[in-house]
Amino acid sequence: MHFDVSEKDARQASDVLSKADLRGIDSHGVARLGTYVDMFKIGRINPKPNIKIVREKKSIATVDGDRGLGLVVGPKANEIAMDKAAQFGSGWISVCNTNHYGIASYYSLKALERDMIGWSMTNSSRIVVPLWGAERMLGTNPIAIAFPGFKNPPIVIDLATSVVAFGKVEIAKRAGKPIPEGWVIDKDGNTSTDPDAVYSGGLLPLGATREMGGHKGYCLSAMVDILTCVLSGANWGPFAPPFAIFEEAPKASVGKGIGHFFGAMEIDGFEEVEVFKKRIDHWIEVFRATKPIPGQHAVLIPGDPEHASEKRRSKEGIPIIQAVVDDLTKISKETGVPFKWEV
Amino acid sequence: MHFDVSEKDARQASDVLSKADLRGIDSHGVARLGTYVDMFKIGRINPKPNIKIVREKKSIATVDGDRGLGLVVGPKANEIAMDKAAQFGSGWISVCNTNHYGIASYYSLKALERDMIGWSMTNSSRIVVPLWGAERMLGTNPIAIAFPGFKNPPIVIDLATSVVAFGKVEIAKRAGKPIPEGWVIDKDGNTSTDPDAVYSGGLLPLGATREMGGHKGYCLSAMVDILTCVLSGANWGPFAPPFAIFEEAPKASVGKGIGHFFGAMEIDGFEEVEVFKKRIDHWIEVFRATKPIPGQHAVLIPGDPEHASEKRRSKEGIPIIQAVVDDLTKISKETGVPFKWEV
Repeated sequence: MHFDVSEKDARQASDVLSKADLRGIDSHGVARLGTYVDMFKIGRINPKPNIKIVREKKSIATVDGDRGLGLVVGPKANEIAMDKAAQFGSGWISVCNTNHYGIASYYSLKALERDMIGWSMTNSSRIVVPLWGAERMLGTNPIAIAFPGFKNPPIVIDLATSVVAFGKVEIAKRAGKPIPEGWVIDKDGNTSTDPDAVYSGGLLPLGATREMGGHKGYCLSAMVDILTCVLSGANWGPFAPPFAIFEEAPKASVGKGIGHFFGAMEIDGFEEVEVFKKRIDHWIEVFRATKPIPGQHAVLIPGDPEHASEKRRSKEGIPIIQAVVDDLTKISKETGVPFKWEV
Repeated sequence: MHFDVSEKDARQASDVLSKADLRGIDSHGVARLGTYVDMFKIGRINPKPNIKIVREKKSIATVDGDRGLGLVVGPKANEIAMDKAAQFGSGWISVCNTNHYGIASYYSLKALERDMIGWSMTNSSRIVVPLWGAERMLGTNPIAIAFPGFKNPPIVIDLATSVVAFGKVEIAKRAGKPIPEGWVIDKDGNTSTDPDAVYSGGLLPLGATREMGGHKGYCLSAMVDILTCVLSGANWGPFAPPFAIFEEAPKASVGKGIGHFFGAMEIDGFEEVEVFKKRIDHWIEVFRATKPIPGQHAVLIPGDPEHASEKRRSKEGIPIIQAVVDDLTKISKETGVPFKWEV
């Protein structure tokens, strides 16, 4: 609100960030507030965007986010997808002229509230190499989808199409530890176990090598890139503008901002909602009962760790590390917005 | 037609199989005719299915394949998805009571003929373990999607969500060679480099280990399983009936046949078709120009190898190995259908 965002939009943005913290995805929560503040300061984000449909045909549309906060553009475009689903059975929205939208699964979880199956994808600035490539050409381009259980919590899938998140390489760097072969390549395109290599090289796609299916991770990342950006007219592949202002800008612009893609399908158009949810319960129970490999207790259901975190943190509160406290204190001083936390 | 399939349906089925052979995916082409014949013989396939929509809401529907040939049910359900897309901008069909539908990309390629983006998924009999599981619970569950170029051939993505195709393990077995660590586990859940281990163990999901993103391959396979089967009322996960009649039947049935999922989106609802196709050309050119890693000539575009094969084989013909010739000769003798080939 300090940067002229309406209270409604500010509350919406807070909801996305705090959902990430609740679900234990600390990298995408309030820890990122500073980067959004930086972007407001340099005028990269429009605090009062006119988010609108620029082209549509019944269940599908392209939405222009008008350089708004991704945390506001994303929820609005997702809502358009869900409203279309309520009217036409499904809704599919490709979004341009936006920026970082938080955790991909936030949007899929929203669809569950309306008994819909929700898809969510976004591109992001280049850090991933295509298989056999020695140059960063793609973002970590996540895919999320969720399915509701009846008595069980939902199955929530949310995965980056890179072999690992960039944050895991940073953790190894801070700990002074080597990283596994197959996570990164160096600037010459050779694989490396040195976390520092990623800064001049890049992350490998899911699968890592040809032998282990690296072409599949590259294909999935390409799919996300095309649905989010090529379809909407956003900056695809290596042209995606960076999220953090200190990162190098791309050589050229081929569109507007970055891109998202949202889908919503009404369960009731396929099957009675309760029947479907009970089948999901059965699926969960059967998969949970899978005989585990030696040394593991059990097979997990997608979303298990995040659900456990949300349950715990909703009760006990969200721990934040000192670096984030410092960051928030700094933002508080700069903006005059009070910041309180409990120890 | 020998088994009472109409000429129209028989031609449709042949088209799917020969497309696989043309595109160099020999495992899914005419080499599989014998298995379909076996299934007709034991009455597992209904030669005259009444394929129908059992529930729908505008852009979405559930289709019952009435135990028809997957090579007939798949194209029909895909056509329903495309017809819905022509009417509502997009069409999404979950299919039960079907069986093996050939190559997933056949369906995405069909959508291109109507200036649509086509998605295709199917489940298959259990061979893949979930991450940390020591039991086969999922099929290789492929995902396909295609995007048309303007001057360039289309980008065609078609990937199994397992780390490798089962066929690759079989090739190593025939050659008497070990397989890479991370492809399979043995019956106790330990990783193995012995191709024989897969017969009592299973294939690992894309990513293979937790460290290398095996949970992501498991999530993608689960997504396909739910969209194709849980949504439509087909046999999901470990309950999928086997394709080959000599394979062990599942312990129980939880639905009808196996399941597919098709999606089609009209490009024109998002962007002018020519503008989109030219952007895809640009994407292809930029990605093709990626600096390659040492030892590789170039980064490929998804679908490159299959496109090259189709171009070559359309002109020079399709080579078939002796084992397939023998198989077709046997079918010819049994059915009285003439079989001729050129050497």
